[in-house]
Amino acid sequence: MVSKGLKGYGYIEKADAMKRENEVLETMIEGVAEDLRLPKDHCLLDGMIEPCTLVIIGASGDLTARKLVPALLNLYLNDGLPDPFLIVGCGRTRMGDDEFRERMKKAIAESVKVDQEKWEAFAGFLFYHRVEYDDLPAYVRLAEYLRALDKEYGTGGNRIFYLAIPPSLYETTARMLGRAGLSEEKKEWRGWVRIVVEKPFGRDLKTATALDGVLHQHFHEPQIFRIDHYLAKGTVQNILMFRFANAIFEPLWNRRYIDHVSITAAETLGVEHRAGYYEQTGVLRDMFQNHMMQLLALCAMEPPSLFEADRVRDEKVKIYRSLRPFPVENLEDYLVLGQYGPGTIDGKAVSAYRDEPGVSPDSLTPTFAMMKIYVDNWRWQGVPFYMCSGKRLAEKRTEIVIQFKEVPHSMFRHSIGERITANHLTLSIHPDEKITLTFQTKSPGARVCLRSVTMDFHYHQGYEGPVLDAYEKVLLDLMTGDHMLFWRQDGVELCWSFLTPILEGCEMCSNRAEMLLPYEAGSRGPALTLNP
Amino acid sequence: MVSKGLKGYGYIEKADAMKRENEVLETMIEGVAEDLRLPKDHCLLDGMIEPCTLVIIGASGDLTARKLVPALLNLYLNDGLPDPFLIVGCGRTRMGDDEFRERMKKAIAESVKVDQEKWEAFAGFLFYHRVEYDDLPAYVRLAEYLRALDKEYGTGGNRIFYLAIPPSLYETTARMLGRAGLSEEKKEWRGWVRIVVEKPFGRDLKTATALDGVLHQHFHEPQIFRIDHYLAKGTVQNILMFRFANAIFEPLWNRRYIDHVSITAAETLGVEHRAGYYEQTGVLRDMFQNHMMQLLALCAMEPPSLFEADRVRDEKVKIYRSLRPFPVENLEDYLVLGQYGPGTIDGKAVSAYRDEPGVSPDSLTPTFAMMKIYVDNWRWQGVPFYMCSGKRLAEKRTEIVIQFKEVPHSMFRHSIGERITANHLTLSIHPDEKITLTFQTKSPGARVCLRSVTMDFHYHQGYEGPVLDAYEKVLLDLMTGDHMLFWRQDGVELCWSFLTPILEGCEMCSNRAEMLLPYEAGSRGPALTLNP
Repeated sequence: MVSKGLKGYGYIEKADAMKRENEVLETMIEGVAEDLRLPKDHCLLDGMIEPCTLVIIGASGDLTARKLVPALLNLYLNDGLPDPFLIVGCGRTRMGDDEFRERMKKAIAESVKVDQEKWEAFAGFLFYHRVEYDDLPAYVRLAEYLRALDKEYGTGGNRIFYLAIPPSLYETTARMLGRAGLSEEKKEWRGWVRIVVEKPFGRDLKTATALDGVLHQHFHEPQIFRIDHYLAKGTVQNILMFRFANAIFEPLWNRRYIDHVSITAAETLGVEHRAGYYEQTGVLRDMFQNHMMQLLALCAMEPPSLFEADRVRDEKVKIYRSLRPFPVENLEDYLVLGQYGPGTIDGKAVSAYRDEPGVSPDSLTPTFAMMKIYVDNWRWQGVPFYMCSGKRLAEKRTEIVIQFKEVPHSMFRHSIGERITANHLTLSIHPDEKITLTFQTKSPGARVCLRSVTMDFHYHQGYEGPVLDAYEKVLLDLMTGDHMLFWRQDGVELCWSFLTPILEGCEMCSNRAEMLLPYEAGSRGPALTLNP
Repeated sequence: MVSKGLKGYGYIEKADAMKRENEVLETMIEGVAEDLRLPKDHCLLDGMIEPCTLVIIGASGDLTARKLVPALLNLYLNDGLPDPFLIVGCGRTRMGDDEFRERMKKAIAESVKVDQEKWEAFAGFLFYHRVEYDDLPAYVRLAEYLRALDKEYGTGGNRIFYLAIPPSLYETTARMLGRAGLSEEKKEWRGWVRIVVEKPFGRDLKTATALDGVLHQHFHEPQIFRIDHYLAKGTVQNILMFRFANAIFEPLWNRRYIDHVSITAAETLGVEHRAGYYEQTGVLRDMFQNHMMQLLALCAMEPPSLFEADRVRDEKVKIYRSLRPFPVENLEDYLVLGQYGPGTIDGKAVSAYRDEPGVSPDSLTPTFAMMKIYVDNWRWQGVPFYMCSGKRLAEKRTEIVIQFKEVPHSMFRHSIGERITANHLTLSIHPDEKITLTFQTKSPGARVCLRSVTMDFHYHQGYEGPVLDAYEKVLLDLMTGDHMLFWRQDGVELCWSFLTPILEGCEMCSNRAEMLLPYEAGSRGPALTLNP
């Protein structure tokens, strides 16, 4: 079933064990009537990768060249792809397989080193097929083309449709795929079908629900994979392991010991070439609706009974459902918005947001937000979560800081005579991938004297195996059909329910311009802060 | 009042602050009647060091040359001694000041580097005075001699009598000091008097009480300093700071989260030149009655309300009072005793204990013990403490390991399919001075896979100030009169109450020889172990 794959990552060993288990199972049920036999569903076999075809809709775009194909090539070089595995690029551009291969070869040259022979072996499974996104006959031809490939290569009709197109085309494309019969599983050809969408999933609750409505006309929820590539970072995945594979953190992980939590995703980059998108989106939709909410959920959620996609997503959804509705009548105490002005980053002068190409000179789009939110449940009552993200800040840094409370009583007050710095735990996601615990010890020397010291754990310390980048992980999970790191629709909608009133509050209020605080590019954001 | 001292250690700054505080106090009470004025007692002024004379009884012995004088010289070189500060060596050997100085110069040459000029300045305050330990007139002459020195140097009659003699001479010497009037404080000459004894404080409850009776005939408890130099190690002092200056460890520090605690003090050395002493003592009296019990108390005690000598010692005593009486009818399940045979350490052949010079060839003295004990209180009910110490073991290592319980429920059981290694925290005292936390993280790579990793904190990391060795710290605290790191008599007696039945059980039982398990020098101890 698995002809190749993932030696270094440990998948192959797992697959072998699964196979053995399956054989035992088959032996056990040999005497049982044929129709009682369990279906050999891929979903049962977590970790196994079946042959399949990845259809990239929007193959001439940026995402395909910069992220998807390099990630696929890396997986290929590490024996991480099933055999056979086909990649079919689709787009409006007219080109043949060879031109597509040449383009991809050029695109990956910057990021992946590969010798000619290996590239050719990989490129032999790259194909291109032209479609107009709203042209049904084109999709029907695509269906025929894919069926022919299936037949030729033996990919068993298993397909992933990856929408690497602007969100405005999601609905049309999903509808066309559906109408061309491409969303149907296990019919003429036996195989599974998955569809992949990237954020933004709508731009508010209403549009998100509408998009979902279209997707669900043609696809079942288990077929839909809503990517949040933050979730695929090793250190982000580690949050749950850290919390729930250790007995010593969970007892401290609540309102009794935690003073507040800070979640930060700071960037030094500006809008770059994405001004058109960003002007419509702003930091709240771009970062808070997805990545920030996921980090919050991982931090705050209750332990699921089992580390399984739906048990984990159930717990995340419980957090979203527990978010205290934002006090929209009193936004200023809970929300700081900013927009970057001109400044200096890494010694280079950079322009103001309003001077970026494609940005309106009187744009009111926020590029920075800090938000104070509460999770109204037993565990977190009264503990503020400070979430902060922005562009053109002093440093690129993604981290979660658990700030513990001070000691309830200092027995050292006579000798030290001051407050004792409280502990904090930092889960660093970027640029360092590490965990740091800050605590107090005796300062060496004669006097009773404390000092703050740290203990570090670097995520890769002592590890020599292969490392997956976020897109490689996402692609692997798409192939195995593991929903763990993808958004489920109820989560998307609950987060929009939380965020939409805030967005409306900011965007429709009379003092919208005053609410948007300017900050210098390369600074730490607006002077005003909500932090304690 | 303090003419010099301890710049690098921070004492001087503290003393200055104290002085300022005192001045304010004096200004405040200026108008108040003379007799209401607070006494300027040294005890009020924690951290201040007054001029004084250190009288070493047994000055021709090993301890003086190897430990005391090098420590004093180091303090001197770091501005850690008051000025004036006199050292008067006393012993049975006939010699003059110059010969004593020469001897000390030779002795320190191995451990301390000092230039001639500095040595001479230090040596100028070294004196020698001959005494026979049981000769009262000699002590009367010593008293006169000391009074003359006081007068000449202005040491204010403050004296420390350090008994650097065999324990068999403690009682006689204390009695003689008392009868010569040397134990009296603030009489003819105004000044304080302290007496210092080193372990062993008796060899069982009865002899300990007897020794204490004699000491208390002439000295009050606050005058008596019972040394445990383990307590003066920075990392040992740090245990209380670590526990009680951080809010995050104390919630975990109990039966709910801790599975067991191991306290280990392993040595590679044999009995060396101390066979005569060791034959009478054995590992239980040599290590368990003092150092091991202190480590246990620091680990297990409740938080005192204040970090003050008697508040801390009150809490230690509560632990000793809570020790579950050892099941002497069933020793084997709770106690392993061993004696080293021949073996190899660091590639060198070493002889068996019974072949050491001064050891009886059929000696039944244990050189190794492991003990499982329980603290019967609310916090520790059911948590075993494994205490282990021995000579001629594979490595020199002193550490406390807090072994936490496993996670109550593993949500990863389907993906990982095995038990999750529980966390542990190691407080390393020797040879590494560090704290290590072992925990589980996600292994980098595609699969859900845990690995055990560690975070370290090295006690001296990022610290550049002067470091005190244990004897320097002990001597400083003697001078400031701080009892924090010294045994109080109730603790001594409670530990003997606990240990005496065990000693009697082992030493008087019919199968004493069988109980004593042989182990190879350089090994990890007897094959039998109590550890889980």
